[in-house]
Amino acid sequence: MFMRIDHVGIACHDLEEKIALFEQTFELTVVAREVNEEQGVKEAMLHIADGNGGGSYIQLLEPLGPDTPVGKFLAKRGEGVHHVAFGVPDVAEAMREIGGKGVRLLDEKPRHGTMGSSIAFLHPKDVGGMLTELVQAPKH
Amino acid sequence: MFMRIDHVGIACHDLEEKIALFEQTFELTVVAREVNEEQGVKEAMLHIADGNGGGSYIQLLEPLGPDTPVGKFLAKRGEGVHHVAFGVPDVAEAMREIGGKGVRLLDEKPRHGTMGSSIAFLHPKDVGGMLTELVQAPKH
Repeated sequence: MFMRIDHVGIACHDLEEKIALFEQTFELTVVAREVNEEQGVKEAMLHIADGNGGGSYIQLLEPLGPDTPVGKFLAKRGEGVHHVAFGVPDVAEAMREIGGKGVRLLDEKPRHGTMGSSIAFLHPKDVGGMLTELVQAPKH
Repeated sequence: MFMRIDHVGIACHDLEEKIALFEQTFELTVVAREVNEEQGVKEAMLHIADGNGGGSYIQLLEPLGPDTPVGKFLAKRGEGVHHVAFGVPDVAEAMREIGGKGVRLLDEKPRHGTMGSSIAFLHPKDVGGMLTELVQAPKH
Protein backbone atom coordinates (compact mmCIF):
# COMPACT_ATOMS: atom_id res chain seq x y z
CA MET A 1 0.00 0.00 0.00
CA PHE A 2 2.73 2.50 1.02
CA MET A 3 5.40 3.02 -1.66
CA ARG A 4 7.48 5.68 0.05
CA ILE A 5 7.52 8.34 2.76
CA ASP A 6 6.42 11.16 0.48
CA HIS A 7 7.00 14.05 2.85
CA VAL A 8 7.13 15.35 6.38
CA GLY A 9 5.08 18.52 6.78
CA ILE A 10 6.50 21.06 9.22
CA ALA A 11 4.40 23.96 10.53
CA CYS A 12 6.26 27.28 10.85
CA HIS A 13 5.56 30.94 11.50
CA ASP A 14 7.76 32.34 8.74
CA LEU A 15 8.10 30.35 5.53
CA GLU A 16 10.95 32.36 4.02
CA GLU A 17 13.01 32.19 7.20
CA LYS A 18 12.58 28.41 7.46
CA ILE A 19 13.32 27.84 3.76
CA ALA A 20 16.62 29.67 4.26
CA LEU A 21 17.36 27.61 7.40
CA PHE A 22 16.66 24.25 5.76
CA GLU A 23 18.50 25.16 2.54
CA GLN A 24 21.58 26.28 4.44
CA THR A 25 21.62 23.65 7.17
CA PHE A 26 20.81 20.57 5.11
CA GLU A 27 21.78 21.69 1.59
CA LEU A 28 18.23 21.12 0.33
CA THR A 29 16.62 22.85 -2.65
CA VAL A 30 13.09 24.21 -3.01
CA VAL A 31 11.44 22.55 -6.00
CA ALA A 32 7.91 23.95 -5.60
CA ARG A 33 6.07 26.77 -3.86
CA GLU A 34 2.33 26.99 -3.64
CA VAL A 35 -0.51 28.83 -1.92
CA ASN A 36 -3.34 26.42 -1.06
CA GLU A 37 -6.35 28.56 -0.11
CA GLU A 38 -8.47 25.46 0.56
CA GLN A 39 -6.02 24.26 3.23
CA GLY A 40 -5.17 27.78 4.39
CA VAL A 41 -1.42 27.50 3.88
CA LYS A 42 1.46 28.72 1.80
CA GLU A 43 4.05 26.04 1.42
CA ALA A 44 7.37 24.99 -0.07
CA MET A 45 8.66 21.55 -1.00
CA LEU A 46 12.37 20.81 -0.45
CA HIS A 47 13.56 17.79 -2.40
CA ILE A 48 15.37 14.98 -0.58
CA ALA A 49 15.33 12.03 -2.98
CA ASP A 50 13.45 10.33 -5.76
CA GLY A 51 11.56 7.31 -4.52
CA ASN A 52 9.13 4.61 -5.47
CA GLY A 53 6.36 6.23 -7.58
CA GLY A 54 7.35 9.80 -6.63
CA GLY A 55 9.77 11.89 -4.59
CA SER A 56 10.54 12.43 -0.92
CA TYR A 57 10.41 15.94 0.47
CA ILE A 58 10.35 18.19 3.49
CA GLN A 59 7.27 20.38 3.24
CA LEU A 60 7.31 23.71 5.06
CA LEU A 61 3.89 25.15 5.90
CA GLU A 62 3.01 28.69 6.95
CA PRO A 63 -0.65 29.32 7.81
CA LEU A 64 -2.58 32.01 5.90
CA GLY A 65 -4.19 33.04 9.18
CA PRO A 66 -4.72 32.01 12.83
CA ASP A 67 -8.09 30.33 12.13
CA THR A 68 -6.65 27.78 9.69
CA PRO A 69 -5.76 24.21 10.74
CA VAL A 70 -2.02 24.97 10.67
CA GLY A 71 -2.57 28.30 12.44
CA LYS A 72 -4.40 26.52 15.25
CA PHE A 73 -1.71 23.83 15.40
CA LEU A 74 0.99 26.50 15.82
CA ALA A 75 -0.95 28.26 18.58
CA LYS A 76 -1.40 24.99 20.47
CA ARG A 77 1.88 23.11 19.88
CA GLY A 78 4.35 25.53 18.34
CA GLU A 79 6.57 24.90 15.35
CA GLY A 80 7.34 21.30 14.41
CA VAL A 81 6.07 18.24 12.58
CA HIS A 82 2.45 18.75 11.55
CA HIS A 83 1.82 15.63 9.47
CA VAL A 84 3.48 12.76 7.61
CA ALA A 85 2.55 11.77 4.06
CA PHE A 86 2.94 8.37 2.44
CA GLY A 87 2.92 7.66 -1.27
CA VAL A 88 0.25 5.26 -2.54
CA PRO A 89 -0.40 4.06 -6.10
CA ASP A 90 -4.09 5.09 -6.06
CA VAL A 91 -5.39 7.41 -3.34
CA ALA A 92 -9.10 6.61 -3.90
CA GLU A 93 -8.40 2.89 -3.58
CA ALA A 94 -6.24 3.42 -0.48
CA MET A 95 -9.06 5.48 1.10
CA ARG A 96 -11.51 2.65 0.46
CA GLU A 97 -9.17 0.02 1.89
CA ILE A 98 -8.16 2.00 4.97
CA GLY A 99 -11.65 3.38 5.58
CA GLY A 100 -13.00 -0.16 5.32
CA LYS A 101 -10.86 -1.08 8.31
CA GLY A 102 -12.61 1.49 10.49
CA VAL A 103 -10.05 4.30 10.27
CA ARG A 104 -11.82 7.66 9.98
CA LEU A 105 -11.04 9.63 6.82
CA LEU A 106 -10.89 13.43 7.10
CA ASP A 107 -11.74 13.74 3.39
CA GLU A 108 -14.73 12.21 1.64
CA LYS A 109 -12.91 12.15 -1.69
CA PRO A 110 -9.38 12.87 -2.90
CA ARG A 111 -8.49 16.52 -3.11
CA HIS A 112 -5.81 18.70 -4.63
CA GLY A 113 -2.39 18.43 -3.01
CA THR A 114 1.02 19.91 -3.68
CA MET A 115 2.56 19.70 -7.15
CA GLY A 116 -0.54 18.25 -8.83
CA SER A 117 -0.92 15.32 -6.44
CA SER A 118 -4.19 13.80 -5.20
CA ILE A 119 -4.34 13.53 -1.43
CA ALA A 120 -6.49 12.56 1.54
CA PHE A 121 -5.98 12.79 5.29
CA LEU A 122 -6.64 10.15 7.96
CA HIS A 123 -7.81 10.94 11.49
CA PRO A 124 -4.71 11.04 13.71
CA LYS A 125 -6.50 9.41 16.66
CA ASP A 126 -7.05 6.26 14.59
CA VAL A 127 -3.41 5.91 13.51
CA GLY A 128 -1.24 6.41 16.56
CA GLY A 129 -1.62 10.17 16.99
CA MET A 130 0.03 10.95 13.64
CA LEU A 131 -1.89 13.16 11.23
CA THR A 132 -1.42 10.97 8.16
CA GLU A 133 -1.72 11.99 4.53
CA LEU A 134 -2.04 9.66 1.55
CA VAL A 135 -0.44 11.01 -1.64
CA GLN A 136 -0.85 9.87 -5.21
CA ALA A 137 1.77 11.59 -7.36
CA PRO A 138 0.57 13.03 -10.68
CA LYS A 139 1.11 10.92 -13.77
CA HIS A 140 3.77 12.40 -16.04
CA MET B 1 23.72 15.48 2.55
CA PHE B 2 20.30 13.81 2.98
CA MET B 3 19.88 10.63 0.90
CA ARG B 4 16.42 9.58 2.08
CA ILE B 5 13.82 9.97 4.81
CA ASP B 6 15.01 7.01 6.86
CA HIS B 7 12.16 6.82 9.32
CA VAL B 8 9.45 8.59 11.25
CA GLY B 9 9.58 7.71 14.96
CA ILE B 10 6.19 7.49 16.66
CA ALA B 11 5.87 7.44 20.45
CA CYS B 12 3.22 5.07 21.83
CA HIS B 13 2.04 3.61 25.13
CA ASP B 14 1.70 0.01 23.96
CA LEU B 15 4.13 -1.26 21.32
CA GLU B 16 2.35 -4.53 20.57
CA GLU B 17 -1.02 -2.82 20.15
CA LYS B 18 0.44 -0.24 17.76
CA ILE B 19 2.37 -2.85 15.77
CA ALA B 20 -0.90 -4.72 15.21
CA LEU B 21 -2.66 -1.48 14.21
CA PHE B 22 0.01 -0.43 11.70
CA GLU B 23 0.37 -3.92 10.25
CA GLN B 24 -3.36 -4.29 9.74
CA THR B 25 -4.16 -0.75 8.63
CA PHE B 26 -1.26 -0.13 6.28
CA GLU B 27 -0.16 -3.69 5.42
CA LEU B 28 3.32 -3.06 6.81
CA THR B 29 5.69 -5.71 8.16
CA VAL B 30 7.95 -5.55 11.20
CA VAL B 31 11.54 -6.17 10.11
CA ALA B 32 13.30 -5.50 13.43
CA ARG B 33 12.58 -5.29 17.13
CA GLU B 34 15.02 -3.97 19.66
CA VAL B 35 15.34 -2.83 23.26
CA ASN B 36 17.63 0.20 23.52
CA GLU B 37 18.46 0.66 27.21
CA GLU B 38 20.60 3.72 26.47
CA GLN B 39 17.65 5.53 24.89
CA GLY B 40 15.12 4.00 27.28
CA VAL B 41 12.87 2.50 24.61
CA LYS B 42 11.70 -0.72 23.10
CA GLU B 43 11.01 -0.31 19.44
CA ALA B 44 9.94 -1.90 16.19
CA MET B 45 10.77 -0.98 12.60
CA LEU B 46 8.05 -1.42 9.96
CA HIS B 47 9.45 -1.46 6.44
CA ILE B 48 8.01 0.91 3.82
CA ALA B 49 10.53 0.92 0.97
CA ASP B 50 14.16 0.55 0.05
CA GLY B 51 15.78 3.88 -0.63
CA ASN B 52 19.01 5.64 -1.37
CA GLY B 53 21.72 4.09 0.86
CA GLY B 54 19.21 2.32 3.13
CA GLY B 55 15.51 1.74 3.79
CA SER B 56 12.53 3.83 4.82
CA TYR B 57 10.55 2.80 7.89
CA ILE B 58 7.96 3.70 10.46
CA GLN B 59 9.56 3.28 13.90
CA LEU B 60 7.26 2.60 16.84
CA LEU B 61 8.68 3.55 20.25
CA GLU B 62 7.43 2.51 23.70
CA PRO B 63 9.28 4.02 26.66
CA LEU B 64 10.90 1.70 29.22
CA GLY B 65 9.67 4.04 31.96
CA PRO B 66 8.15 7.48 32.63
CA ASP B 67 11.55 9.12 33.28
CA THR B 68 12.91 8.37 29.80
CA PRO B 69 12.85 10.95 26.97
CA VAL B 70 9.99 9.15 25.19
CA GLY B 71 8.13 8.65 28.49
CA LYS B 72 8.31 12.40 29.17
CA PHE B 73 7.26 13.16 25.60
CA LEU B 74 4.15 10.96 26.00
CA ALA B 75 3.24 12.59 29.31
CA LYS B 76 3.51 16.06 27.77
CA ARG B 77 2.19 15.62 24.21
CA GLY B 78 0.54 12.20 23.99
CA GLU B 79 1.04 9.65 21.27
CA GLY B 80 2.31 10.83 17.89
CA VAL B 81 5.39 11.76 15.89
CA HIS B 82 8.42 11.94 18.18
CA HIS B 83 11.22 12.50 15.66
CA VAL B 84 12.18 12.28 11.99
CA ALA B 85 15.36 10.59 10.77
CA PHE B 86 17.24 11.31 7.56
CA GLY B 87 19.78 9.03 5.93
CA VAL B 88 23.29 10.43 5.45
CA PRO B 89 26.36 8.78 3.90
CA ASP B 90 28.58 9.47 6.94
CA VAL B 91 27.04 10.52 10.24
CA ALA B 92 30.28 11.87 11.77
CA GLU B 93 30.87 14.06 8.74
CA ALA B 94 27.24 15.26 8.72
CA MET B 95 27.58 16.16 12.44
CA ARG B 96 30.69 18.21 11.69
CA GLU B 97 29.05 20.00 8.77
CA ILE B 98 25.75 20.74 10.52
CA GLY B 99 27.37 21.56 13.86
CA GLY B 100 29.71 23.92 12.04
CA LYS B 101 26.67 25.93 10.93
CA GLY B 102 25.68 26.60 14.55
CA VAL B 103 23.05 23.87 14.96
CA ARG B 104 23.33 22.27 18.41
CA LEU B 105 24.03 18.53 18.41
CA LEU B 106 22.45 16.43 21.16
CA ASP B 107 25.23 13.84 20.79
CA GLU B 108 28.94 14.50 21.00
CA LYS B 109 29.72 11.50 18.84
CA PRO B 110 27.73 8.98 16.81
CA ARG B 111 25.95 6.35 18.85
CA HIS B 112 24.24 3.04 18.33
CA GLY B 113 20.90 3.21 16.52
CA THR B 114 18.39 0.67 15.30
CA MET B 115 19.52 -2.27 13.16
CA GLY B 116 23.24 -1.57 13.50
CA SER B 117 23.05 2.04 12.32
CA SER B 118 25.12 4.97 13.59
CA ILE B 119 23.01 7.92 14.63
CA ALA B 120 23.05 11.40 16.14
CA PHE B 121 20.30 13.82 17.12
CA LEU B 122 20.03 17.55 16.43
CA HIS B 123 18.42 20.07 18.78
CA PRO B 124 14.82 20.55 17.62
CA LYS B 125 14.83 24.28 18.41
CA ASP B 126 17.58 24.83 15.84
CA VAL B 127 15.78 22.99 13.02
CA GLY B 128 12.19 24.18 12.98
CA GLY B 129 10.92 22.40 16.08
CA MET B 130 11.53 18.92 14.62
CA LEU B 131 13.62 16.51 16.68
CA THR B 132 15.93 15.43 13.88
CA GLU B 133 18.03 12.27 13.71
CA LEU B 134 20.88 11.59 11.30
CA VAL B 135 21.24 7.93 10.32
CA GLN B 136 24.12 6.14 8.68
CA ALA B 137 23.00 2.65 7.67
CA PRO B 138 25.41 -0.20 8.45
CA LYS B 139 27.68 -1.38 5.65
CA HIS B 140 26.67 -4.83 4.40
